[in-house]
Amino acid sequence: MRNLTQDNITQAVLARLADTPDPRLKEVVTSLVQHLHAFARDVKLTEQEWFQGIEFLTRVGHITDDKRQEFILLSDTLGLSMLTVAMNNDKPAGCTESTVFGPFYVEDAPHFDLGEDVANGAPGIPCLVRGTVRGLGGEPVPGAEIHVWQADAEGKYDVQRTGGDGHRARGVLHASGKGEYHFRSILAEAYPIPDDGPVGDMLKATKRHPWRPAHLHFMIKAPGYETLITHVFRNGDAYLDSDAVFGVRQSLVADWVKQPDGTYLVEYDFVVNPAGAGA
Amino acid sequence: MRNLTQDNITQAVLARLADTPDPRLKEVVTSLVQHLHAFARDVKLTEQEWFQGIEFLTRVGHITDDKRQEFILLSDTLGLSMLTVAMNNDKPAGCTESTVFGPFYVEDAPHFDLGEDVANGAPGIPCLVRGTVRGLGGEPVPGAEIHVWQADAEGKYDVQRTGGDGHRARGVLHASGKGEYHFRSILAEAYPIPDDGPVGDMLKATKRHPWRPAHLHFMIKAPGYETLITHVFRNGDAYLDSDAVFGVRQSLVADWVKQPDGTYLVEYDFVVNPAGAGA
Repeated sequence: MRNLTQDNITQAVLARLADTPDPRLKEVVTSLVQHLHAFARDVKLTEQEWFQGIEFLTRVGHITDDKRQEFILLSDTLGLSMLTVAMNNDKPAGCTESTVFGPFYVEDAPHFDLGEDVANGAPGIPCLVRGTVRGLGGEPVPGAEIHVWQADAEGKYDVQRTGGDGHRARGVLHASGKGEYHFRSILAEAYPIPDDGPVGDMLKATKRHPWRPAHLHFMIKAPGYETLITHVFRNGDAYLDSDAVFGVRQSLVADWVKQPDGTYLVEYDFVVNPAGAGA
Repeated sequence: MRNLTQDNITQAVLARLADTPDPRLKEVVTSLVQHLHAFARDVKLTEQEWFQGIEFLTRVGHITDDKRQEFILLSDTLGLSMLTVAMNNDKPAGCTESTVFGPFYVEDAPHFDLGEDVANGAPGIPCLVRGTVRGLGGEPVPGAEIHVWQADAEGKYDVQRTGGDGHRARGVLHASGKGEYHFRSILAEAYPIPDDGPVGDMLKATKRHPWRPAHLHFMIKAPGYETLITHVFRNGDAYLDSDAVFGVRQSLVADWVKQPDGTYLVEYDFVVNPAGAGA
């Protein structure tokens, strides 16, 4: 196998993958090579552009650490994340829709009791969040594990702040025996995704804004149900129709109602899909 | 733009790129998004696989530093590098063929006079390398700048060794007024590409060997000529037909002849393409 040309190199690479033991890995890598090569061929990628691509990915890798995930941000802004979510969450009507996971979840968020304030000092207007977690049949899901995380009034997640203030505006709660939940936090605000790195450079070079409409992140887990990863978006936000990461579902938009004392209330009921139920 | 589905999200992402000022960037990013999405759709990428991809790229980024370029290694092993080289180096017959740049070039290699030993203590059997640099019309290219780099007898480039022995088995020379060059180095040996990182894991998972046939890297620059990036491969090497990075050209294979004193001699004449000559 010498003297490969632009016309036969793809087949040569695929032949080299022929002995891959895992059939799914073989399928995925084979398709990846075909599409990667087709991309390079379609645009007739120059050597300089190839090197710019290497440098771009290197920057993405080097800015990524345990608090910043620029590869997820890249996938999000190219629509790959939402495409993957859409392909894998074709749930029965009535289930709460999924959206992107995003780059800001952390594994070890603190646990809270129902009614507590997850803000933990994060700046923002106080807000009460409440609702129920039910299964598709309408049954309550007692004790459902509810992970919530959000940006503060300045548009920053705790992990974006240096100085070690610890976990703020994120936590884990458990629904009541009736599947009900309520907790205090702060009002969600629109914010720009981190745009001081290579993904930000890509957005600027393509004249795209970096804003996401205001939202709360939720991940809900319960035995016997599929894990739900979603947001609740704030109705009226200017960026609902131009989310930088393409994640908005109309069914996830809720009213955040201003109360007489200046605080806010948002109510949202989640419906989770029984495990193995399919679409 | 809400409620995007797997069927319309690609168009929505492309629409978001519509205002990209640079037409070439627009073309490249548009094609990239189309192929990236087509890949995800073709294999119906799962969310777990998506996350494995994020983790893989993160590892590639984190192992990459100023001495190790795992993204280039990834591109090389997926055949993307050689495809790019093939598309961009369709030179006139008679010109020396190009091959992959590889991840081991460094910018600040030491300069040597003709006849000197670039090995600088790198372990290996002594070898004399000589030949000429000529233009396509047969004219010598006086003073052509010759960058050479290679692995040592243990299959390691200097930058792969810790401990700071500095530059070994690499250097920059200038051809004579007649376009002739000669320098001493060490015998090139087959070696495995670095396989202790994520690219190595990919090779193992696909049952591919990591070996490259023995070769010397060359980059030749001269005013009025296209820069030539290539290798000279060692005839008889067991890996000439299964190079892990798909880089072998038959025209680049040379005999490394053992001399009576146990050292080796390899002779190779380069022919560079006048700038702007095209194919």
